[in-house]
Amino acid sequence: MLVKVIACGVCHTDLHAANGDWPVKPNLPLIPGHEGLGYVAALGEGVDYIKEGDIVGVPWLYSACGHCEHCITGWETLCESQQNGGYSVDGSYAEYVVADARYVGHLPHGIDFTAMAPILCAGVTVYKGLKETEVKPGEWVAISGIGGLGHVAVQYAKAMGMHVAAIDVAEDKLELARKLGADLVVNARKQDPGQYIKTETHGGVHGVLVTAVSTIAFQQGLSVMRRKGTLALNGLPPGSFELPIFQTVLNRHTIRGSIVGTRKDLQEAIEFAVEGKVAPTVHAARLEDINVVFDEMKKGDIEGRRVLEIAQP
Amino acid sequence: MLVKVIACGVCHTDLHAANGDWPVKPNLPLIPGHEGLGYVAALGEGVDYIKEGDIVGVPWLYSACGHCEHCITGWETLCESQQNGGYSVDGSYAEYVVADARYVGHLPHGIDFTAMAPILCAGVTVYKGLKETEVKPGEWVAISGIGGLGHVAVQYAKAMGMHVAAIDVAEDKLELARKLGADLVVNARKQDPGQYIKTETHGGVHGVLVTAVSTIAFQQGLSVMRRKGTLALNGLPPGSFELPIFQTVLNRHTIRGSIVGTRKDLQEAIEFAVEGKVAPTVHAARLEDINVVFDEMKKGDIEGRRVLEIAQP
Amino acid sequence: MLVKVIACGVCHTDLHAANGDWPVKPNLPLIPGHEGLGYVAALGEGVDYIKEGDIVGVPWLYSACGHCEHCITGWETLCESQQNGGYSVDGSYAEYVVADARYVGHLPHGIDFTAMAPILCAGVTVYKGLKETEVKPGEWVAISGIGGLGHVAVQYAKAMGMHVAAIDVAEDKLELARKLGADLVVNARKQDPGQYIKTETHGGVHGVLVTAVSTIAFQQGLSVMRRKGTLALNGLPPGSFELPIFQTVLNRHTIRGSIVGTRKDLQEAIEFAVEGKVAPTVHAARLEDINVVFDEMKKGDIEGRRVLEIAQP
Amino acid sequence: MLVKVIACGVCHTDLHAANGDWPVKPNLPLIPGHEGLGYVAALGEGVDYIKEGDIVGVPWLYSACGHCEHCITGWETLCESQQNGGYSVDGSYAEYVVADARYVGHLPHGIDFTAMAPILCAGVTVYKGLKETEVKPGEWVAISGIGGLGHVAVQYAKAMGMHVAAIDVAEDKLELARKLGADLVVNARKQDPGQYIKTETHGGVHGVLVTAVSTIAFQQGLSVMRRKGTLALNGLPPGSFELPIFQTVLNRHTIRGSIVGTRKDLQEAIEFAVEGKVAPTVHAARLEDINVVFDEMKKGDIEGRRVLEIAQP
Repeated sequence: MLVKVIACGVCHTDLHAANGDWPVKPNLPLIPGHEGLGYVAALGEGVDYIKEGDIVGVPWLYSACGHCEHCITGWETLCESQQNGGYSVDGSYAEYVVADARYVGHLPHGIDFTAMAPILCAGVTVYKGLKETEVKPGEWVAISGIGGLGHVAVQYAKAMGMHVAAIDVAEDKLELARKLGADLVVNARKQDPGQYIKTETHGGVHGVLVTAVSTIAFQQGLSVMRRKGTLALNGLPPGSFELPIFQTVLNRHTIRGSIVGTRKDLQEAIEFAVEGKVAPTVHAARLEDINVVFDEMKKGDIEGRRVLEIAQP
Repeated sequence: MLVKVIACGVCHTDLHAANGDWPVKPNLPLIPGHEGLGYVAALGEGVDYIKEGDIVGVPWLYSACGHCEHCITGWETLCESQQNGGYSVDGSYAEYVVADARYVGHLPHGIDFTAMAPILCAGVTVYKGLKETEVKPGEWVAISGIGGLGHVAVQYAKAMGMHVAAIDVAEDKLELARKLGADLVVNARKQDPGQYIKTETHGGVHGVLVTAVSTIAFQQGLSVMRRKGTLALNGLPPGSFELPIFQTVLNRHTIRGSIVGTRKDLQEAIEFAVEGKVAPTVHAARLEDINVVFDEMKKGDIEGRRVLEIAQP
Repeated sequence: MLVKVIACGVCHTDLHAANGDWPVKPNLPLIPGHEGLGYVAALGEGVDYIKEGDIVGVPWLYSACGHCEHCITGWETLCESQQNGGYSVDGSYAEYVVADARYVGHLPHGIDFTAMAPILCAGVTVYKGLKETEVKPGEWVAISGIGGLGHVAVQYAKAMGMHVAAIDVAEDKLELARKLGADLVVNARKQDPGQYIKTETHGGVHGVLVTAVSTIAFQQGLSVMRRKGTLALNGLPPGSFELPIFQTVLNRHTIRGSIVGTRKDLQEAIEFAVEGKVAPTVHAARLEDINVVFDEMKKGDIEGRRVLEIAQP
Repeated sequence: MLVKVIACGVCHTDLHAANGDWPVKPNLPLIPGHEGLGYVAALGEGVDYIKEGDIVGVPWLYSACGHCEHCITGWETLCESQQNGGYSVDGSYAEYVVADARYVGHLPHGIDFTAMAPILCAGVTVYKGLKETEVKPGEWVAISGIGGLGHVAVQYAKAMGMHVAAIDVAEDKLELARKLGADLVVNARKQDPGQYIKTETHGGVHGVLVTAVSTIAFQQGLSVMRRKGTLALNGLPPGSFELPIFQTVLNRHTIRGSIVGTRKDLQEAIEFAVEGKVAPTVHAARLEDINVVFDEMKKGDIEGRRVLEIAQP
């Protein structure tokens, strides 16, 4: 399938791709971008369930083998032979991108491409991460880090019926969290999140989503969680965390990694956004400004998500 | 309820109780022992579901509050107000022990008390730990450490329909594992468990039970596990583990602490043993020999489980 | 525990109790009522987790044995030795009611007793029923029958993040459903719910809650459900339903009975209401008007829920 | 993929295909057979994960769309666009059969083709049905009907660690069940299964698999089940069952249809058989004897499963 790209979000992973600083290396030369959104321009043979002119998103999970144990059980995100958009194959920082019809996301006509692009990675990643915490409607989830991922997570959590405690160190981000519906916000620089959240939630949260993957966020995440809670990790920094054994066993804590989401997760994440329940904060940029955006990203200067507007919708 | 003790297993925790070297301290002076098995000698008021002469076991989970969120959802092991036998209250290294009728295990007449005593802690702990790995019949579980807990775990895993890979560093323990039904054994001193087990199981095990809670066992446990696997921790050493972030996220690994088991877990664990599907290796001792047993325990000289024979059945 | 009753909802079951027309008979003479809400007036010995003056609700699940397999796994609603308020023991159509401290619901000060009373049975019943459909946030649930139970179910479903399709035969009830947030309403007298809902939801709903337990509601429930869906039954009419085998097997449909809810379900149901996310439509009456209310109930004249106001809060 | 068929089991569905007596009609002219087992003779373009000479099975689930919500979540058995071997497309009562490489089962060299053929439908169907009962190792399952499906179900249940109660009306079939490991057998013609099984299992079984789908088997299945139990239906007769409402709700019973199994289920079912834990009773026949076999089937004269031996392995 050939897709005419209208917009493509800029993800931190794109910077890792450009820098080649992850254990698994990208295929060079490479066009980055895995939040590409556009119109189907041409279809390969035998694709009868999509038609030209449809709107699709080309995600990180570009394709998978389709027959391994993970692929046949709806966990293609774990396929060992997967291709990743803008990493192992060319992505959407381009006017046109080639995609595998079986793995694209489907969107209805009438959407705002720029606003919707970040759902393809940031959106589905936190949505899946929230599912992986196993927090149920009415229960509490803590979201650690209210940045590009976290501010989207707050919205998904509220739409899923959860109570949300937002943890960050910046007042403006906590203010944003509150506007987006967080029931509780904690500035971890000003007070101990563990004690405060455990008191306010009568025992601690039922789950934690760590989007700001740092050692301190991890430890704080464990400290705010009640017994039997699950902490999900969203993010791929190098290094390791210290997991305290005594507390993990005594509290029956569960720690779980979560990476992007399956096609089904993606479709569900898109539906929440199409209904208007989730709207990432976005700032448009031009394709030719990508290096400026990367520089801002290195400095941590980006609020919400940067999206490249590549063509007129 | 008053219980005339016939036999009581000796657990590593009893040594911690005697030494007082855990973060949470025991109530002194103290009678240790939480694998006590005996006859109901007298009943308190209103207990109509047990009668004198019945055989009961008095476990680690001596009692719980009965009304917190964990107690009312079948997770009384997480009750913050629980009492622990031989730790916060007197245990079963004694001719008689007082027990809470609502929390004892129930056993049929005709059992071998000495052989059955370790089910009350070692048995239920590994049985629950195996459940917490979420490994299903036909799938693979790795059991790391074939000692007092591990050799019982191998038997439960086989009775639950799992394939078992046993990991240890002692040939005699691996030999025991094989006799007890392990499908695969690895001497971690002689070869890399990760590579070997991943090859033999076509991708790695679905779950891991770490009974020998050491840093190296933890790392090996992660290394033998396929994507989407769950590693359960059984044991309460001080300290912490290094959890590698990139692999945890990319492989969607789950790490979970597990402590003893609920009353339902205990009853199920007992039933497997009563049917003869699980039989701990036991060595009898007399109550007055407890300090000798503790000395052996400190040296790591015990094969299977030591059980104090306190009275004639 | 002695409870000074402030308000008590009137449930259809109370009419069955008065009539004695169920297979299991009530204990006569009897004071009906299992939606009683009031202040703790006196406490029995050893109850240290509630204090006089606290607000509690005395539910249908008046007490249970506490030690059967269901009680110890958080399913005390299935206890074979349970007592039921206003049925096997005296209930809350009274100035004072005796309750078992371990089984009451807990409410904060400042609530509206009349508005909150129906949560104790109608609320928890539909909340649990919705959980039993296994519908997840973002998915579709159909609620069949928008009466005393159904109009509360619509609110819980929305608070739990579900999409709601309401089915009834009365336009005013469908209008109410729409006001309460239903995304789709169908008048089953005017059009075939199966075809309409399957089209509008792109394949059918993921779960169905049948609150109006009638043969036709059951058949309609099956007809609106997509493959792999679950239909939960809330209600206890005599008789039986025709379950079509071919469709049940081919569609992997699940049919499940659900009765009231556990203490945990009740506490969760209360919290949704205390937060204002669920508010049953109530009409106050005096205790001495109960026979008038019963007459209205027999005629099906009641909109929402009737609540007896027994004392000043 | 072209498969040289060595053996093919004869299933009751083949008779339905020949008679065309199901609501959904077969595509005529038709070659029946969906338990075909043989060697890969030729491969289509792009199939690199199987090679010529490999042993594969061509099941009922011949192919599915690969992109609907069921296909992408590991439930391709619910795909509305699926093709069925020997029903909507030609099957394996033939020397060669064309198969879709993505949907075949994989078997190792050295197997007994005749003995293994029934796993492709009878095996996977009951294996999946048992999973759908949600019975866990150590719990009780009742298997109703010890015929071609049921005698295989007894073996899977035992291999999965369950306790088995077998129900039939023929003494020889109950004798077979006992030989295959059933812990309890009941001749429903001689005694009431409900009372007997509830007594012997201390409350009833945790799940039921109804393989003999008849009205009486369904009612008996409900009657032997403890509260919270799940009854799974395996089979596609026309007609409907009477589901008693009061008991279903009060007992929180779950009734669920189950049809064949997914690719993952099939692969797991094959592994149990390859390990020797499950061995269907088979009787060989020649391809040209198919009409004789069909006649026997109509009379109910077949013990175990008939398998057509089509070529030399």
